[in-house]
Amino acid sequence: MSSAAPPGRGPKVRAAVLAATVDELSEHGYAALTVEKVARRAGVHKTTVYRRWPDRDVLIADALAESVAADLPIPDTGAIDSDLSSLARSLVVWVKSPGGRAILAVMLSDAVGLARPPDQIRHVFRDRIRGALPVVERAIGRGELPTGTNAAELLKTMVAPIYLRALITGEPLTESTADSAARLALTAAHAGLFESE
Amino acid sequence: MSSAAPPGRGPKVRAAVLAATVDELSEHGYAALTVEKVARRAGVHKTTVYRRWPDRDVLIADALAESVAADLPIPDTGAIDSDLSSLARSLVVWVKSPGGRAILAVMLSDAVGLARPPDQIRHVFRDRIRGALPVVERAIGRGELPTGTNAAELLKTMVAPIYLRALITGEPLTESTADSAARLALTAAHAGLFESE
Repeated sequence: MSSAAPPGRGPKVRAAVLAATVDELSEHGYAALTVEKVARRAGVHKTTVYRRWPDRDVLIADALAESVAADLPIPDTGAIDSDLSSLARSLVVWVKSPGGRAILAVMLSDAVGLARPPDQIRHVFRDRIRGALPVVERAIGRGELPTGTNAAELLKTMVAPIYLRALITGEPLTESTADSAARLALTAAHAGLFESE
Repeated sequence: MSSAAPPGRGPKVRAAVLAATVDELSEHGYAALTVEKVARRAGVHKTTVYRRWPDRDVLIADALAESVAADLPIPDTGAIDSDLSSLARSLVVWVKSPGGRAILAVMLSDAVGLARPPDQIRHVFRDRIRGALPVVERAIGRGELPTGTNAAELLKTMVAPIYLRALITGEPLTESTADSAARLALTAAHAGLFESE
C-alpha cells in the first residue's frame, strides 16, 4: 500500500477498487470509466469510493501509480548494468501486459484525439522515472558513471526504444530488446552524452 | 507524385484526394473516415476515387505515404552528422504538424483499443525508415561508420527519443532534441552497437 488506509477492511477495499479501476480501463478505456462502474465491479457502494477518492481522475491516477509501482520494481543489484537490464526487462513485460496496455491507452488518448487526461494522470510516467533515479545515482556514487550524469535523461534514453517497438513499429519485445536498450543508455552515459553543460 | 497518373487533370485530382484524406484523418480520425467524405471534401465524385483506390485503406496508406515523403525528405549533405540532424529535425517538425499528428493517431488506434489499421497502413513507418537507409549506407561507404552497421537499427534508435517526447512525456520538441537524438545514434554506431553479430 502506498498510502495509509483506515483500519478494518480498508486495505482490502482499497486494493479491490484500484484493481477494478485498472480492469475497467483495460476493457472499456479511459473515456468510458465511471466511479459507478468501478464500484460495481469492486463490489462496494459508490459512496465508499467517493469517501477515499474525490473524483474519477484522482482514482485513476492512484490506480495507475499503484499498478506501475507493483509491475516496475526498482532494482538494487549493486551494479548499473544489471540494474538497467532489470528495469528494462520489467518494462518489456509491462508494456505487453493488460495493465500496461491499459495505462498506455490512457496516456495516448490525447494523441489520438480522444479526451486529454489531466496532468495528475499524465505524470504517472514522470513519477516512475523519478522513482528510478536512485538506480543511476547509486551508480554515480560507486564510480560506475560520470559525475554529473543526468539520471532522468539516461533512463528516458533507455525506455525510448522499448516504447517505439510497443507503439510504432510493432516489432517483438524480448529480453534481448531490453538488454540492448540498457546497453544503449550505458554507452551514451559513458560517452558523456548525459552530462550537464 | 509517387505513381503514374492518367493524363489530363489526373495529377490534380490525385493531389486533391490525398490532401482531403489527410485532412479528414486530422479532423475526424481513422475510424470515421469514408470514401464519400473524402470525395466531398476534394470536390470529386466518389466513383472518381474508387477508380484509383479500390478501398479506403489503400487510399489512406497512399495518402500517408505521400504526406510522409513530402514532410520527411531524405537529405544528402555529404556527411553523416548533418544528414542525421536534418532527418531528426524534419521529424521533430513533422510530429508536431497536423498531418503528423493525424498519421500518429492512425498508427496508435490499435494501442488505445480502437480499430486496428491494416498492415499496409502500419507499414508507412517501416517504409520511411527503408527510404532513409541510403543515408547510413552512404556514410558507411565514406568510411564514417563501421562496415556492417545495421542502418535500420541506427535510424530507429535516433527516432525513438523523439517519439517518446511526442507520445509519452509531452516534453518540448526542439532542434536541440533532434540534434541530441542524432548524436545518440552516432555515438552508439561508433561504439559498434549496431554491428551484426
